[in-house]
Amino acid sequence: MIYLTRKERFSAAHRMFRPDWTDEENMQVFGKCSNPNWHGHNYILNVTVKGDIKEDTGFVINMNILKQIIKDKIIDIVDHKNLNIDVGFMKGKIATTENLASAIWNELDLPVKNQGARLHCIKIEETENNTIEYYG
Amino acid sequence: MIYLTRKERFSAAHRMFRPDWTDEENMQVFGKCSNPNWHGHNYILNVTVKGDIKEDTGFVINMNILKQIIKDKIIDIVDHKNLNIDVGFMKGKIATTENLASAIWNELDLPVKNQGARLHCIKIEETENNTIEYYG
Amino acid sequence: MIYLTRKERFSAAHRMFRPDWTDEENMQVFGKCSNPNWHGHNYILNVTVKGDIKEDTGFVINMNILKQIIKDKIIDIVDHKNLNIDVGFMKGKIATTENLASAIWNELDLPVKNQGARLHCIKIEETENNTIEYYG
Amino acid sequence: MIYLTRKERFSAAHRMFRPDWTDEENMQVFGKCSNPNWHGHNYILNVTVKGDIKEDTGFVINMNILKQIIKDKIIDIVDHKNLNIDVGFMKGKIATTENLASAIWNELDLPVKNQGARLHCIKIEETENNTIEYYG
Amino acid sequence: MIYLTRKERFSAAHRMFRPDWTDEENMQVFGKCSNPNWHGHNYILNVTVKGDIKEDTGFVINMNILKQIIKDKIIDIVDHKNLNIDVGFMKGKIATTENLASAIWNELDLPVKNQGARLHCIKIEETENNTIEYYG
Amino acid sequence: MIYLTRKERFSAAHRMFRPDWTDEENMQVFGKCSNPNWHGHNYILNVTVKGDIKEDTGFVINMNILKQIIKDKIIDIVDHKNLNIDVGFMKGKIATTENLASAIWNELDLPVKNQGARLHCIKIEETENNTIEYYG
Repeated sequence: MIYLTRKERFSAAHRMFRPDWTDEENMQVFGKCSNPNWHGHNYILNVTVKGDIKEDTGFVINMNILKQIIKDKIIDIVDHKNLNIDVGFMKGKIATTENLASAIWNELDLPVKNQGARLHCIKIEETENNTIEYYG
Repeated sequence: MIYLTRKERFSAAHRMFRPDWTDEENMQVFGKCSNPNWHGHNYILNVTVKGDIKEDTGFVINMNILKQIIKDKIIDIVDHKNLNIDVGFMKGKIATTENLASAIWNELDLPVKNQGARLHCIKIEETENNTIEYYG
Repeated sequence: MIYLTRKERFSAAHRMFRPDWTDEENMQVFGKCSNPNWHGHNYILNVTVKGDIKEDTGFVINMNILKQIIKDKIIDIVDHKNLNIDVGFMKGKIATTENLASAIWNELDLPVKNQGARLHCIKIEETENNTIEYYG
Repeated sequence: MIYLTRKERFSAAHRMFRPDWTDEENMQVFGKCSNPNWHGHNYILNVTVKGDIKEDTGFVINMNILKQIIKDKIIDIVDHKNLNIDVGFMKGKIATTENLASAIWNELDLPVKNQGARLHCIKIEETENNTIEYYG
Repeated sequence: MIYLTRKERFSAAHRMFRPDWTDEENMQVFGKCSNPNWHGHNYILNVTVKGDIKEDTGFVINMNILKQIIKDKIIDIVDHKNLNIDVGFMKGKIATTENLASAIWNELDLPVKNQGARLHCIKIEETENNTIEYYG
Repeated sequence: MIYLTRKERFSAAHRMFRPDWTDEENMQVFGKCSNPNWHGHNYILNVTVKGDIKEDTGFVINMNILKQIIKDKIIDIVDHKNLNIDVGFMKGKIATTENLASAIWNELDLPVKNQGARLHCIKIEETENNTIEYYG
């Protein structure tokens, strides 16, 4: 079993808040992250897939195909976008990195399977100090 | 002459656009950076000051005082904010990193002078690949 | 199950030696790390906690609370200190990064539990090339 | 159980291709990585070993001994070399990072065991975006 | 005057040697970098241009245009190539990073001028420890 | 004129204080950096030299020779040492990074000249956020 990780980046705006809470309640739980005028990040996305080494290529998965999947399913949807407003797979969810990692897993699970490998981990660095990992 | 650089970080939303242009004109010049729903970045701010080494302390400037100046004048104003809407010193300016660097210079120039040193450079990394430097 | 990692930094002095060994024995096992006049590092501490996503917040743990716990229990105790002399929870232990990781686990295990999450990993980078991980 | 990781670097040339395929077939699967005149990388090698903390030293393994093992068995063999031509343990294998990680595992497994620890993971970063991990 | 830097990456093989020297002479001056079977690097290229902020856009230069210039003139020519064999603008030159920086300057000087800015610096990181800067 | 930078690292202990000041005065000016039991850092040293490209080698300076000079004159003297106690060229100076950069300049200026190049800059990163540059 070999694990392969591809790192991609995107820049997006978001805020963390619940529409059913008052501004004061949102500020108390989410702090400055609830700023109504948004803020944003350079997110770093690490997608890890696992599988056996294919005898004929020496690959777990063809990296060029994996890059294309991540681009089509994730980067083109979230890059230079507002995670709360513009991104279909985040609709109705609080825009935390935890929820983002779980939603990205759901988008990539099947396309990776279709390439003969398995999704292992979605890791998102929101800032250089804050990171979330999800293993399905 | 010694140069001292302090690195700080902030996360902010912005968009690049001109209100006197149509959406199509903005898209043509600013591309996806003109997204009306905003996007954002983890900005890295490098403030370089210069001066002689003070005999009694071995310092160009007391780093703790410089940190406090940068926090009061810049970080508290821009962190987890929208550069187009929330930040007084960016009012009326297109929110490019070029304009941001020049505006931050104006905020820090005098406070650094008051500590017996001189501002040398404002360097802002918008992404790991895009950096602006301004020397006054 | 989601994993959240918070990265913090501290600068400390230490030496590795056994008081019951001669200088020659210490030098033979610990090399230049046993220098009697100390040396030091910029340590990078990664604290990983795990748990379910809370429905009402979308969080595993409130990052601001986790930061405060790490500050109170670890950073305020070790930053700009001597690990051999100044740090209570290292008393009587050889100041290796292995022992440091295990001791920091003991300090953080219960406070993290009290926030409804579980401690998963203490990872310490002593230099950019030398890293220790402890999983309890 | 404690995990210790040592990071080393090497620069090498390689190409990915099968001699039993035509240039067109190689280009189709391996793309620009099959360039007949070679290309190269600054590879980053992370070797993780695991074991208990030794009571008398506070170490999992003596880092100086681990460094020497990695130097003798790997770095001196691959650094500033051509992975396809110059490296005995890659003979007959397609020079993918997957195969390289697996081959390096085989070189280090026994020497680490002889030091009273166990090899846990070989992780190779081929570029800052492409990483392979192998756990035996 | 504002300075803007764009960072790009490429992976290439090379060797340093003089065809008019013996292998022994080449080894004496260039060491392991003269390996006849090549080695390679992940090169990091930083292109800095300077100019005034344009009133209508807030830009020194449109980053998308600069990226396209660097791609067309440099990255497409050197990425996954052999600097000694495959790259026209390195023909007849020893493949040192010094010569590479100077050659890249010559390729980019005019195209940048045609965009109303001026080339300021070509900086190439051959490894994380070895960097060359050229200012024309 | 070409600029070449070599990056090296060392780990050292230090404290900032004046023996002719009381503990209270030292604490007021130097803060936690004056801890009597020392603290320490992973210092990153960047040595930049400048000169013309030599026609016969394509080098500004032979990197292997520069590495050896930095090792002999600096790294072997400061690595795993106490900057206040163990380092001859820091005797009688407050152990600030400013004073360290200036002292390292004095050690390297002549040896670099003897290799046909000129010292351009000593840059020391004390932490990832605090950097000093000295140009002689």
